[in-house]
Amino acid sequence: MNFSSKILEDSVDALASLPGIGRKTALRLALHLVQDNTNKAQRISTSLTRLNTDIRKCGVCNNIADNDLCNICTNTLRKSGVLCVVENARDVMAIEDTNQFSGRYHVLGGVISPLDGIGPGDLSIDTLIHRIKAENISELIMAISPTIEGETTIYYISKLLKDTDIRITVIARGVAFGGDLEYADELTLGRSIASRIPYSFQI
Amino acid sequence: MNFSSKILEDSVDALASLPGIGRKTALRLALHLVQDNTNKAQRISTSLTRLNTDIRKCGVCNNIADNDLCNICTNTLRKSGVLCVVENARDVMAIEDTNQFSGRYHVLGGVISPLDGIGPGDLSIDTLIHRIKAENISELIMAISPTIEGETTIYYISKLLKDTDIRITVIARGVAFGGDLEYADELTLGRSIASRIPYSFQI
Repeated sequence: MNFSSKILEDSVDALASLPGIGRKTALRLALHLVQDNTNKAQRISTSLTRLNTDIRKCGVCNNIADNDLCNICTNTLRKSGVLCVVENARDVMAIEDTNQFSGRYHVLGGVISPLDGIGPGDLSIDTLIHRIKAENISELIMAISPTIEGETTIYYISKLLKDTDIRITVIARGVAFGGDLEYADELTLGRSIASRIPYSFQI
Repeated sequence: MNFSSKILEDSVDALASLPGIGRKTALRLALHLVQDNTNKAQRISTSLTRLNTDIRKCGVCNNIADNDLCNICTNTLRKSGVLCVVENARDVMAIEDTNQFSGRYHVLGGVISPLDGIGPGDLSIDTLIHRIKAENISELIMAISPTIEGETTIYYISKLLKDTDIRITVIARGVAFGGDLEYADELTLGRSIASRIPYSFQI
């Protein structure tokens, strides 16, 4: 691309460093901001700076937080005793959006993946074990993606806790609503048959 | 979406104000920046601020520029005498990328569009007329999109110049390379027949 402006080129380079944003899209966004006269570039710029400087990790659950503790950990109305273990902050938001869970979370910060050089020590598993004792947790709901790495992580944590009487559950795996049996993979379909549930009129 | 962080939510709102970026994409980008530890958010933020504060319009051709004049107008190697009239700075870049034009440009800043409330007075047509005399221009190449508004703009400018001996040309309209005749619209196909050119072995 032939840029007539170094400043524009820098912005395109910066925006194109984002995942899923190519140079053509970056150029479209940058030119939009140049032509915009509502100070949008400034607004975006200020909020992105705060992402780098002001966001921290919740000291208890490792979720994204504006303060020392996230607003789920500080919410006294949330049930205690059950922890939902997830991979990252995005998963917390996805589960919160379902309104089906009213307990607290624990964000691992990833899954065990030797190929990517991520071992148990890189995840917040130590703090999870500590919380289980400190908060008198009776059940861990493993809401972790059903991949090889996810399953390995669940297995690792369950082994650590095998001598305790804590209940470990995993979220149901099966055919998605609106999904077509024909296109479901064999493993998913096989598991959904193995873990079938009694029919009820409720969905 | 249930955000556990107001700072994250602000960033998602800001990013989602960009064209073509929905809230899910904005969230993905913001979380990427939170998790990134190479200071990417700060880099993007700095360059976007400069888009708002440091970019100006070239005093001659109205193109985007870092200084008072753009680097095409200050380039003494560019041919004088021929001006390529375009709608916006993006079009200058597109034509520069073809390496087929070595003259200078004039950026109108839009096209005449009464429905959007854009009249000739909102475009840099006055400065174009001024340049034609001052720079002794012999040809205007109208590289403007072949839409109703584009054609209206070309017609308006050509009427203003009808008493001069300046040559006004428009870029060829026809079937695109790799395009299929079957799918070309009638107007384009009709025009491409009317303005047929002698066959040569060069492409």
